[in-house]
Amino acid sequence: MSLEVISKIRSHGGTQGVYKHASSATGTDMEFSVFVPDHAAGATLPVVIYLSGLTCSQANVTEKGEYRAACAALGLIFVAPDTSPRGADVPDDAEGAYDFGLGAGFYVNATEAPFGQHYNMRDYIERELHALIGADFPADISRVAIMGHSMGGHGALTIALRNRDQYKSVSAFAPIVSPLNCPWGEKALSGYLGADRAAWRTYDACALIEDGARVADILVDQGTGDNFLETQLKPDLLAAACAAADQPVTLRMQEGYDHSYYFISTFMAEHLEWHAARLRV
Amino acid sequence: MSLEVISKIRSHGGTQGVYKHASSATGTDMEFSVFVPDHAAGATLPVVIYLSGLTCSQANVTEKGEYRAACAALGLIFVAPDTSPRGADVPDDAEGAYDFGLGAGFYVNATEAPFGQHYNMRDYIERELHALIGADFPADISRVAIMGHSMGGHGALTIALRNRDQYKSVSAFAPIVSPLNCPWGEKALSGYLGADRAAWRTYDACALIEDGARVADILVDQGTGDNFLETQLKPDLLAAACAAADQPVTLRMQEGYDHSYYFISTFMAEHLEWHAARLRV
Repeated sequence: MSLEVISKIRSHGGTQGVYKHASSATGTDMEFSVFVPDHAAGATLPVVIYLSGLTCSQANVTEKGEYRAACAALGLIFVAPDTSPRGADVPDDAEGAYDFGLGAGFYVNATEAPFGQHYNMRDYIERELHALIGADFPADISRVAIMGHSMGGHGALTIALRNRDQYKSVSAFAPIVSPLNCPWGEKALSGYLGADRAAWRTYDACALIEDGARVADILVDQGTGDNFLETQLKPDLLAAACAAADQPVTLRMQEGYDHSYYFISTFMAEHLEWHAARLRV
Repeated sequence: MSLEVISKIRSHGGTQGVYKHASSATGTDMEFSVFVPDHAAGATLPVVIYLSGLTCSQANVTEKGEYRAACAALGLIFVAPDTSPRGADVPDDAEGAYDFGLGAGFYVNATEAPFGQHYNMRDYIERELHALIGADFPADISRVAIMGHSMGGHGALTIALRNRDQYKSVSAFAPIVSPLNCPWGEKALSGYLGADRAAWRTYDACALIEDGARVADILVDQGTGDNFLETQLKPDLLAAACAAADQPVTLRMQEGYDHSYYFISTFMAEHLEWHAARLRV
């Protein structure tokens, strides 16, 4: 694969890069950011993949996520992909809404026309980006963690539950825990996957756990001041699914915190420390 | 003074606010941000004023500065004002350039028409904002530090040198150290103050030191990969002025770092620790 360097900037004792490549999974160019701490020549470092939420690109967490100091201290590579394919020929929401189409790929392989051609974010994250990070960066691809925010928390949980061997740990900030049971999920999964809700279950963290998928443990932080808490996020559904299935989960309700990067950045270092312990850095 | 709350968001164990008020110094509304760590009822905390660079508002450092974790740990209030007056009746650069007018107030009291009416950022920072922070926030206004970036580093150095009793410590990231000796400074000070360069000296850190102003010590971080290093910033001029005047200064050249918030955020916590020690937290 050939990577185009958009920018490489020195920060926090490492290099913050932004890259572009032609993606076979999406049939478009895709951008992502990677922070690589300084390291000994020839060394490889464990990797944390961060999946962003609705409306975001890689830029939001890259600018506001406050992850570089902790990644440098812990020796972690931090990878932030985009949230959807983009380009002139990529179909968007019919009304240009923020919660479907561009910036809202929901980390699925779409099956419904006209989205199936480009909206293959599941394959992009699980296969293509994974291989690319292993090939083009000083990454120990046997030690990879995944985390995300909101729609990206949904992505991280579902991808980890479907690929237990590929990800050593998983965490989320304010995740959509059950697209089957919230307006964002109903709109996105019906649009990308069609009306058969049975096909949605592999893209629903709670349904995956009910259907037998497991990970070693899960860390979730959720702000009590989050405007989407009761209508969209519903962490109680995850807690109930985990309790019924003996799936270990740590759900921390954070008093007064909202849905923004002011919340995410507050707990970013703790999540990275949690992953580092499980990646045996 | 009556403060309008634009937003108050929980972050890093404190409250990140953005506020607006009618300024008597500038004759406009002015916005600024304040981070207040959680603290005991009735307690007051020392304050760090952060002055931003060309093109910035309070938002750049508030979103990208990575100061909240350190301020919460050290018990520091962090205040970020705007870089110029703004509004429909505030004159801008004739060609709308980024380095004069809106977003480029240079922390002076302008004397040249039509800028003198609104461009009084010196009085705004030294007098009005200072009093406002003391009156409306849990601030110990006897313990205030000042720092800044680029044009804001120029502001911090010159304001501290002119007001040694008001600021316990001063530091800067990639400051403009001598507006008398760089294109940004020549354009701005001739536009705001007129052709008499003698009037510029009170707005030039090197000239102030040459003319006898002193502070206890100065901390400056400067990236060696900064595009503006040789043409605009010229830290050697500050080093020479300090050496000639026995003014203590710590100038750290940071290998490979640029002029952006990727640089600032890297060394923000160290600057805050340096200020905290001098504020005797």
